Amino acid sequence: MIELVGFDGDDTLWHSEGYYQHAGAEFERIVGAYVDVADATVRSRLLAAERRNLALFGYGAKSMALSMVEAAIELCGDRFSARDVHRIIELGKRLLEHPVELLPGIRQAVETIAARHRIVLITKGDLFHQERKVESSGLADLFHRIEIVSEKDPRRYARVLDECAVPASRFVMIGNSLRSDIEPVIELGGWGIHMPYHVTWAHELEHGVDGAHPRMLSVAAADALPQAVAQCAHRAV
Amino acid sequence: MIELVGFDGDDTLWHSEGYYQHAGAEFERIVGAYVDVADATVRSRLLAAERRNLALFGYGAKSMALSMVEAAIELCGDRFSARDVHRIIELGKRLLEHPVELLPGIRQAVETIAARHRIVLITKGDLFHQERKVESSGLADLFHRIEIVSEKDPRRYARVLDECAVPASRFVMIGNSLRSDIEPVIELGGWGIHMPYHVTWAHELEHGVDGAHPRMLSVAAADALPQAVAQCAHRAV
Repeated sequence: MIELVGFDGDDTLWHSEGYYQHAGAEFERIVGAYVDVADATVRSRLLAAERRNLALFGYGAKSMALSMVEAAIELCGDRFSARDVHRIIELGKRLLEHPVELLPGIRQAVETIAARHRIVLITKGDLFHQERKVESSGLADLFHRIEIVSEKDPRRYARVLDECAVPASRFVMIGNSLRSDIEPVIELGGWGIHMPYHVTWAHELEHGVDGAHPRMLSVAAADALPQAVAQCAHRAV
Repeated sequence: MIELVGFDGDDTLWHSEGYYQHAGAEFERIVGAYVDVADATVRSRLLAAERRNLALFGYGAKSMALSMVEAAIELCGDRFSARDVHRIIELGKRLLEHPVELLPGIRQAVETIAARHRIVLITKGDLFHQERKVESSGLADLFHRIEIVSEKDPRRYARVLDECAVPASRFVMIGNSLRSDIEPVIELGGWGIHMPYHVTWAHELEHGVDGAHPRMLSVAAADALPQAVAQCAHRAV
């Protein structure tokens, strides 16, 4: 018995991380003109700046743009030119402008699941950017609720479940991030369907999910989602 | 008959714009070391960058920080130093870190109104920053709902009213911004109580509110709010 199905947005419904990885690669190229260090070092300094700033900035493209500027100045010092600062800000703007492209087969999977269950979109990040993506996706009308949260932790999921009046044991969350989509829901007593995306931000790689957890399934692509939800519904009591 | 009372956050419950004005003044000082133009010109270039970026960045301190960097480079060209870029980013960080200070008398006003009506907090801006301010305010528990929106327009207010199942004619919104707090609510057929703050962002000064509108009241300070809500309740049918 499953009453509510949650979908993550970025890298579950639509492509996202690829754009961020591209911005990271462009950042390495810009910084590479100043410092003679391995790309891995540049990347780890950027990640360190992003993680340090998370508690103040939260997630999203504007946060990444500010952290890129900060990391570039840390790495290159006063020689870093205004022109290149401007190029970094343009990278951030391009992240905010990219078109929303749905993952293959996702529209049909969402429609099939929506015909059988109440569905909710739970996405994290920048409110303004996420709203635009939800709107451009053309999927908004299928969802019972759309929840844009600043962090995906047990507290936030519990609030959404409370507002939908559904116990965690009758909720399944579908997403690409074990850390954000699966772990907190399993912790609450809910179900998780993991659909990995081909790239994952390093920050999202850290998690404590047991891959053999009895309330977790994995699927390789969107067309397997309706069947996976049916399996959870069959097992849930 | 009033069923629901909405409160704005920034500059209605707690101080905000003063911190932004301070950041703007610091920005003028940094840029003033490069260009010999009047402060008013520097300020208008910053405002132009902020407004141009609104459609992409939305509101908030991270948006302002990115627009400040952009405007500085526009004004000063390639001479603008990495050190000063860093100082501007620090200005943005300080905006995100400032403590939440309630306006005088606001706690008692909110408590008095909450004892008589359902109240909702409707605040716009950056999700992450607004959540932190709501939490630090110590007022969160008094509110029936907390709505953080990316823009305050009739569509967003209508959605909140719909979720609370209240007709606009039985809703009164309290806020400092005629543009964001009063105009869209009056347009929907609701009531507005304007409590001006001592400084207002230039962008918020543009509005089409008739100061003599029969569904609008003005108060000078928080202690007058319960009486103003009672007046609306008396007049509303």
